[in-house]
Amino acid sequence: MSDVSQSVTAGEPFELSQEECRVLLSAGLVGRVAVCTPLGPHIVPVNYSVVDDSVVVRTTPYSILGSHARGSVLALEVDQFDYERRHGWSVVARGRADLVTGADELEEVKARWQPHAWAAGSRNLFLRIRWSELTGRRLGAGWSPVDELPVHHVG
Amino acid sequence: MSDVSQSVTAGEPFELSQEECRVLLSAGLVGRVAVCTPLGPHIVPVNYSVVDDSVVVRTTPYSILGSHARGSVLALEVDQFDYERRHGWSVVARGRADLVTGADELEEVKARWQPHAWAAGSRNLFLRIRWSELTGRRLGAGWSPVDELPVHHVG
Repeated sequence: MSDVSQSVTAGEPFELSQEECRVLLSAGLVGRVAVCTPLGPHIVPVNYSVVDDSVVVRTTPYSILGSHARGSVLALEVDQFDYERRHGWSVVARGRADLVTGADELEEVKARWQPHAWAAGSRNLFLRIRWSELTGRRLGAGWSPVDELPVHHVG
Repeated sequence: MSDVSQSVTAGEPFELSQEECRVLLSAGLVGRVAVCTPLGPHIVPVNYSVVDDSVVVRTTPYSILGSHARGSVLALEVDQFDYERRHGWSVVARGRADLVTGADELEEVKARWQPHAWAAGSRNLFLRIRWSELTGRRLGAGWSPVDELPVHHVG
């Protein structure tokens, strides 16, 4: 693990359960996707939505993700750090990405997208990351990230 | 660019200047490092410190970063998103990482580390990412991320 546990937070890191990871991941709206390219890794902030055991992100054909993500393993990270209280959590979903192309699948993805109102357009690619690893940690004892979730999903 | 600009934030993305990127990067304490491994990318939350034109992170020899980062290109991302006002910013520094090993260099790094008090120990590796790219965007018009920086560096 990184140094976050040793320096910003005074506490030890604790592994989060699969269920806690899923709850935290599902409650978020913005994460960061890492993708490997021939010139090294890139990190891209993304809106995302959890659909079943996948994370779905939107991108454009000529972006970093549009160019390098299809068929590749990606990592999506969400986190929250409280500088005052020196604790936080981080969840990472890793898995291979493919394009959502079927009409039924697209309908399902769009129906679950948060917020519901977003601009349509021909640039929309939906990348689905079916995670094969879902891991997370919280930093600092005596609190629960799930209990302290902010309410971002307001429809 | 990702969908963050289209969905969570109503505004268009604006490129940040090199100076703005540097100020935002220098003001932060926690970022995420992406590293490529033979099994795909990983994202690791890290404490970091800016030293000259480098980002320095601490890690351990047997961590993901300790195993895969030395001599590789890394990407470190810092960001801040305001869900209420639907704007935010993200800055990414990319470059090759090496170990800080010289006694003088280590002294300089430790002197600039924030917060100053952190546990010493044989597990400490200092990785320096000399950035060859420093890019950033803000989302939403009519505000300045630099003006709205929270004060995290309290010594």
